[in-house]
Amino acid sequence: MKKFDLDNCREFNPLGMKSIVVHDSQHFKILNFNLVAGALFPVHSHDTEGQLSIHVIEGEGEFLADGDQVIPAKIGDMLISDIAESHGVKAKTDMRLVVTIAPPI
Amino acid sequence: MKKFDLDNCREFNPLGMKSIVVHDSQHFKILNFNLVAGALFPVHSHDTEGQLSIHVIEGEGEFLADGDQVIPAKIGDMLISDIAESHGVKAKTDMRLVVTIAPPI
Repeated sequence: MKKFDLDNCREFNPLGMKSIVVHDSQHFKILNFNLVAGALFPVHSHDTEGQLSIHVIEGEGEFLADGDQVIPAKIGDMLISDIAESHGVKAKTDMRLVVTIAPPI
Repeated sequence: MKKFDLDNCREFNPLGMKSIVVHDSQHFKILNFNLVAGALFPVHSHDTEGQLSIHVIEGEGEFLADGDQVIPAKIGDMLISDIAESHGVKAKTDMRLVVTIAPPI
C-alpha cells in the first residue's frame, strides 16, 4: 500500500509532455501526463490486449481517435479505450491526465 | 472507445455512499464513489489477486488501512493497494473518489 500525491508532480515541460510513472505492477500501470497548452500526445495504438483510461484532472483539450475523430476533453472527462484502438490527446490549455493501463504495457 | 463525464454523476446520497459503475470489463473495473461529509467506506479486503487505486477528485478525508492506520486524503491523492490488503475511506467533507480495480472483482 502506498499513497501518491499527484499534485507533487505537477510539472510541465515547455517543449511538450511531461510523463511521470505513478505505479507499475503486473496488474496495471498508472501514469501522470502533463501537457503544456498546445502540446500533442500523438495518436497511436499498440497491438496488444487490454484497455486504458485517460482521466483529465486539470485543463481542457481534445481526445483524438481514429479517422481524425476529435472528442472534447475537460476536467472530469474520462476516455476508455482498447489499447489496440488509436488514441491521443491535444491540449488547449495546460492539461493534466491520469492514464491507467491494464494489463500494463 | 467511450467518453464518460464524471461530473455528470456528481450525486450524493445523504445516507452515506453513492456508487456508480463507470466501466466494467475483463481488464479493469472503474467506479465513482461519492461520500457525503462524515460517511464511511468501511475497511475491507478481498482474498484475491490484483490491485486497486483510489483517487480523490474532490474533498478531503482519510484513507483507512489495517490496524487503525489513518492516512490523510485530499484532492489529488491516490492510494494504491493490493485488493487483499485492508482499505477504506472516511470522508471529512463531501468527497468524490475514482476507484480502479485490476483485474476486476
